[in-house]
Amino acid sequence: MEAEEKSRQKYRARVQYLGTRYSGWQIQRNQTTIQGVLTEALERLAKQPVSVVGSGRTDAGVHARGQVCHFLFPDRPTIPDLLKAINANLPWDIRLMDLRPAPDGFHAQKWARKKRYDYLIFNGPVVSPFLYHIACHVRRPLDLAAMQEGAARLVGKHDFLGFAAASLSVKTTERTIFRSELTRKGTRIRYRVEAGGFLHHMVRNIAGTLIEIGRGRMTPDHVSLVLERRDRTLAGPTADARGLCLQKVWY
Amino acid sequence: MEAEEKSRQKYRARVQYLGTRYSGWQIQRNQTTIQGVLTEALERLAKQPVSVVGSGRTDAGVHARGQVCHFLFPDRPTIPDLLKAINANLPWDIRLMDLRPAPDGFHAQKWARKKRYDYLIFNGPVVSPFLYHIACHVRRPLDLAAMQEGAARLVGKHDFLGFAAASLSVKTTERTIFRSELTRKGTRIRYRVEAGGFLHHMVRNIAGTLIEIGRGRMTPDHVSLVLERRDRTLAGPTADARGLCLQKVWY
Repeated sequence: MEAEEKSRQKYRARVQYLGTRYSGWQIQRNQTTIQGVLTEALERLAKQPVSVVGSGRTDAGVHARGQVCHFLFPDRPTIPDLLKAINANLPWDIRLMDLRPAPDGFHAQKWARKKRYDYLIFNGPVVSPFLYHIACHVRRPLDLAAMQEGAARLVGKHDFLGFAAASLSVKTTERTIFRSELTRKGTRIRYRVEAGGFLHHMVRNIAGTLIEIGRGRMTPDHVSLVLERRDRTLAGPTADARGLCLQKVWY
Repeated sequence: MEAEEKSRQKYRARVQYLGTRYSGWQIQRNQTTIQGVLTEALERLAKQPVSVVGSGRTDAGVHARGQVCHFLFPDRPTIPDLLKAINANLPWDIRLMDLRPAPDGFHAQKWARKKRYDYLIFNGPVVSPFLYHIACHVRRPLDLAAMQEGAARLVGKHDFLGFAAASLSVKTTERTIFRSELTRKGTRIRYRVEAGGFLHHMVRNIAGTLIEIGRGRMTPDHVSLVLERRDRTLAGPTADARGLCLQKVWY
């Protein structure tokens, strides 16, 4: 490889990962992270430093079916060969699903217009091994109608401070939710939420609150209360990371 | 627990497992098997020997969503408590999905009337991490129509010797297939087969042959040829264990 002598091309990739074995997306010292493993694989191939930028972080144990990232890489003849080479350097639980050249200005985080997260709840006595790592387990039957009523209250532009993690460093805690829906299929309850952006822990805190509503410990009104009061202590607990999956990023 | 002093009840259980970490269903010395792990968990709870009988073996790496087994166990007050206790003694990738008392004569293997296996093929350039352990990967596009034609030839009563493993110890190699269907959903191709019984490696050898047909290396006529000639060397290779799943057993 004469990577160093070639010009570099900006690539955009869609990444899937099972977050189970990782300390989240973001590179951290002495931790195995998705961004870290991906960067190492790319640097091994490129034989030069590569910087990988994702659409945003995901927490430890959280999955992605549609994370998007960009990076500069020595220009290669064909995309399928490069995709194959990168995946051959990745563990089985991290995969670039597709790869394409991106315009120079493209930025996976800054250009993101909208994101979709799904939160999966297994609602039944015994969790199937097939869902063990990708669903939160709630044994007792949940009241779906009440949860749906609670979820609907979130649609629109609100200050989501009450649903955010305690330690936040953002300018504004206002966000716009376009879609907030619950569907049940047998023992699986899926919460799907789409927004222009999310605060740290926002989806898991919403999911935790909706589960409390489903259990009858809170009412749908409680969602409005958390939004109005902007008080984190009023929201439900942060739901299990394993139920969360970044499904899609729109640009 | 005063298990030893109580009478024993025959239980019937539906078992799900991800076969990835196991050397198949059947107990073997110095191997970790599903039956072995299950037996140990039950004996730990019962404080006496327990014999677990399954509907049949599954190979190393093969999964089950509907394996059925029976065992005698010291009678317990409530089924949900017993189910919980057993699952608490099992690793996450083996789960009893339900448990019920069975009539004394019930035998998970001998009473089985019909079984359903699904064989999952991921047909696309990159396997999703979410399917890595439960699908066989075929990169190039498969000809579904040709595969469907091949699959249809299997329906009915035939001598399946040509699709069986080399080392067989059964009286007859005649079996009746009631259903043999392929469906495609995006990059997933699912082969579903139902029969009164199966020979060792039969579904994986059929799947391997259907994949060869899908690749254009064999024709649907080849299926009829293997059935007529009863010649193992004519069938396709034994397909990857990870794609196979025992879905259901009828009694």
